[in-house]
Amino acid sequence: MSDAILTQLAAVIESRRIEAGGNPDTSYVARLLAKGPDAVLKKIGEEATELVMAIKDATHGVDRSKASEHVVAECADLWFHCLIALAQQGLRPEAVLDELARRAGTSGLEEKAARKAQQREHGERQGKDTP
Amino acid sequence: MSDAILTQLAAVIESRRIEAGGNPDTSYVARLLAKGPDAVLKKIGEEATELVMAIKDATHGVDRSKASEHVVAECADLWFHCLIALAQQGLRPEAVLDELARRAGTSGLEEKAARKAQQREHGERQGKDTP
Amino acid sequence: MSDAILTQLAAVIESRRIEAGGNPDTSYVARLLAKGPDAVLKKIGEEATELVMAIKDATHGVDRSKASEHVVAECADLWFHCLIALAQQGLRPEAVLDELARRAGTSGLEEKAARKAQQREHGERQGKDTP
Amino acid sequence: MSDAILTQLAAVIESRRIEAGGNPDTSYVARLLAKGPDAVLKKIGEEATELVMAIKDATHGVDRSKASEHVVAECADLWFHCLIALAQQGLRPEAVLDELARRAGTSGLEEKAARKAQQREHGERQGKDTP
Repeated sequence: MSDAILTQLAAVIESRRIEAGGNPDTSYVARLLAKGPDAVLKKIGEEATELVMAIKDATHGVDRSKASEHVVAECADLWFHCLIALAQQGLRPEAVLDELARRAGTSGLEEKAARKAQQREHGERQGKDTP
Repeated sequence: MSDAILTQLAAVIESRRIEAGGNPDTSYVARLLAKGPDAVLKKIGEEATELVMAIKDATHGVDRSKASEHVVAECADLWFHCLIALAQQGLRPEAVLDELARRAGTSGLEEKAARKAQQREHGERQGKDTP
Repeated sequence: MSDAILTQLAAVIESRRIEAGGNPDTSYVARLLAKGPDAVLKKIGEEATELVMAIKDATHGVDRSKASEHVVAECADLWFHCLIALAQQGLRPEAVLDELARRAGTSGLEEKAARKAQQREHGERQGKDTP
Repeated sequence: MSDAILTQLAAVIESRRIEAGGNPDTSYVARLLAKGPDAVLKKIGEEATELVMAIKDATHGVDRSKASEHVVAECADLWFHCLIALAQQGLRPEAVLDELARRAGTSGLEEKAARKAQQREHGERQGKDTP
């Protein structure tokens, strides 16, 4: 499974916009969008809380496999509502993935970490590493 | 944009786990993970709130392009911390993407919508569409 | 416990506003307010998440007394940051308490419930209560 | 209006517990409690988000008076659901107010600030205050 699913889902969401002919009677997305711009934002707050709760349950729980399924489902809920909020702003998930890629490659801290790690390896090889 | 950036980022996060040799002095992820399991959950709550705030600013704001950048950055922050929380649970983003794919394909409401849309298209071609 | 602690705390917070001479070097409130209007909003998101986490821990936990203390502390954190946000808006906790009083007195559902409860009591006194 | 309203509301909530005869058909609180322990936690996440959104609207908005009313109403919603969550844990708002009073009196930072303020006042009276 590739990130392409995010792009596909964004296209589905796009087609559910009221202006695109989305039907609130048959589509959850169209129904949410029809409620106005605040509705999906409330859902983001609620879904983030539910993800945290699911992880808490997983941490405390015994039925590991079921708990993991729940965490995955809540994370999917959260990301799904993020996609809806992005669509509402005329934005696409590719922009978010680009930003994540940019960070993975160059973000301050992690880049610094990579550089330091390289230096450390280099230093270790040369026997002059300092704390 | 890399198509598998979430998978790549998950691998980076995995390598930052303390048990994998992650260094809290040089890596933000290692530092967050070293704080214990609750730290990343608090961040999810905070980052979800920041995404909502950024979208509110974008809705009210005038500088559309800068506001969109901010929304994208906050969404990236939220997803990034979700990836860290998933890693902490031994889960991978592919599981979330699979779940999203499953829903896009089969979720009750959206499937129904898709079926109706197909019927409508079919009906239109046959000239017997009904409301 | 002082009956007007929220009012007292609001006065303390008021005195910590930068314009009122609050000193970010010595006061947490002044420091938070000095960060600009968004800082306390992020804290509300974070503290709400922490309250939910504390309640999850209490539900799953064994050390009931310590868990309860934690829930109380997190709820205090959340309300405290609400007071700061209210002060930032020039609002006072009395307005929130008034609103809560108004609801307790007149909200549709609860008023109906109160009326039914009265009827039930009345009926019990007359020996004709029905399930 | 005094904090006593929180105590009164807690009593109303207590009477809405299913075990206390609360009726989900007529009481919002009973209905929420009947949904199980997670329902009110989700509401806390949602209501905290709504408070943040209302403050954002107030910050950006023009109709100051209506926006303030909205902020107050959302804060009341959040505190109300906190009271329900506390009741679910067998806790009372007085415990939270006690904790807030304890902090106002003794918290490190704020106590230091209070001491400095006293010194400043003292200094002013003696004509040797410095900026």
